[in-house]
Amino acid sequence: MNVWYTEEHTPGVRLSMKIEQHLYSGQSEFQKIDVLQTTEFGKLLTLDGLVMLTEKDEFIYHDMIVHVPMATNPNIKKVLVIGAGDGGTVRELTKYETIEQIDMVEIDKMVVDVCQEFIPLTASKLTDPRVNLFFEDGLKFVRTKENEYDLIIVDSTDPFGPGEGLFTKEFYGNCYNALNEDGILVNQHESPFYAEYALSMQRAHNRIVEFFPNCHVYQAHIPTYPSGHWLFGFASKKFDPIKDLDVAAWNALDLKTKYYNTEIHVGSFALPNYVKEQLEDAE
Amino acid sequence: MNVWYTEEHTPGVRLSMKIEQHLYSGQSEFQKIDVLQTTEFGKLLTLDGLVMLTEKDEFIYHDMIVHVPMATNPNIKKVLVIGAGDGGTVRELTKYETIEQIDMVEIDKMVVDVCQEFIPLTASKLTDPRVNLFFEDGLKFVRTKENEYDLIIVDSTDPFGPGEGLFTKEFYGNCYNALNEDGILVNQHESPFYAEYALSMQRAHNRIVEFFPNCHVYQAHIPTYPSGHWLFGFASKKFDPIKDLDVAAWNALDLKTKYYNTEIHVGSFALPNYVKEQLEDAE
Repeated sequence: MNVWYTEEHTPGVRLSMKIEQHLYSGQSEFQKIDVLQTTEFGKLLTLDGLVMLTEKDEFIYHDMIVHVPMATNPNIKKVLVIGAGDGGTVRELTKYETIEQIDMVEIDKMVVDVCQEFIPLTASKLTDPRVNLFFEDGLKFVRTKENEYDLIIVDSTDPFGPGEGLFTKEFYGNCYNALNEDGILVNQHESPFYAEYALSMQRAHNRIVEFFPNCHVYQAHIPTYPSGHWLFGFASKKFDPIKDLDVAAWNALDLKTKYYNTEIHVGSFALPNYVKEQLEDAE
Repeated sequence: MNVWYTEEHTPGVRLSMKIEQHLYSGQSEFQKIDVLQTTEFGKLLTLDGLVMLTEKDEFIYHDMIVHVPMATNPNIKKVLVIGAGDGGTVRELTKYETIEQIDMVEIDKMVVDVCQEFIPLTASKLTDPRVNLFFEDGLKFVRTKENEYDLIIVDSTDPFGPGEGLFTKEFYGNCYNALNEDGILVNQHESPFYAEYALSMQRAHNRIVEFFPNCHVYQAHIPTYPSGHWLFGFASKKFDPIKDLDVAAWNALDLKTKYYNTEIHVGSFALPNYVKEQLEDAE
């Protein structure tokens, strides 16, 4: 069978993956959920037809969204994760014995159920006793919290559909209030390469800098995401992701990571000139 | 018209670009040459049906293959470029007034002719008076040179077809001899992400480390290349690309670059753990 999944990354650009089997297809209250077995990338999770993760390259995204803030402040104990129904972000967080509580707020319980059944590679640590799952709107959840978290990770879908409210000024302001004075916010920041993604990235950055005194952007290569060039926003009340990185402390943890190390932590904050200009234009 | 160009990046993975017009198609002694007008990427040059460059993302490749060695040793005066018929590497080199001579050896004159006609964005500086064009086999050309160049840039196609000999031990040994004691070699190094490309990269790295005392690998995001995650090999007789980088001197040149800056120079040498392991396995 010659069956291909195709995503339009921008008008006139498509990435296609050969499919061996369509393992699951369902419609939740919020979105269409599919799991496909690909030839090259292992299992593929799509929401409303867009790639969320593949088993072959998810380690890059999850390493970079978790270990950069964790290595910046090794005293992080209480974490809020918004979105991330596949469980990959929580999996990386549970590697830290020092973390005491992980609240994960995912609007769509069916995403978690499907990933627990079909993608244990990312979902298997959602049963860690430190993890509390809340199936509700992250936007509303964070409104009720004040001075509570050391770290908030916004592991959202793109800013259309269910993820839309997570790219608003109100949301980032509420995140600021939900963080304590050591607080760090990490936001999946879209791509700088195609115009409509760059616009989302600039909008998110522009809103975050209104609240946080320290804002930085870092990058990674994620082959199955549009253009492969992906950004993350790092914002904090007092930590600097380079100056406060404690290389020896992180290495002493002896965590196994396939992408992240402390050199790439530092290197990932060096951005191409055109991306720096996009960020300056946004501010 | 709904016409698409598709490249198979690895079995089961395809990148497709919408085509507005097929501007040129010809067969040289060595390969099939095509220029297509795409919707998103401007003009696209393919050789034997594989992407060589697009106008939208060529700046990333050419910035990184040229400015990393030039910023490491600002005294580079005599450069040998092997391959690179599109002219993009030479264009970046001609920005340096301190360079006195650029010998470019391209096996296929028709590539240069086609790029001069259809892709002036990259080819327009091939007429710079410092540039000498040699239409011959780079492998043979470099055999005849000794202690002559400050910098050799191997801007080859993939190591199959005409580019094959450029990934051999004999070739890298001849490059070593053709370089003077300040000599730097930069090699386009393929991608670490898909198995067959990673193997080429490991083979090239393995051969280069046999000759050069200082070998390093650096990376960039090039969206239209397989996986978008691309590597370059930096090898030299005495220069270290980080310790010898003179940030102030390079910034004083005030060159306009869309991707390269001295922070990304340093950051690009920080590699993911899995790539570091591939390189260790290769040595």
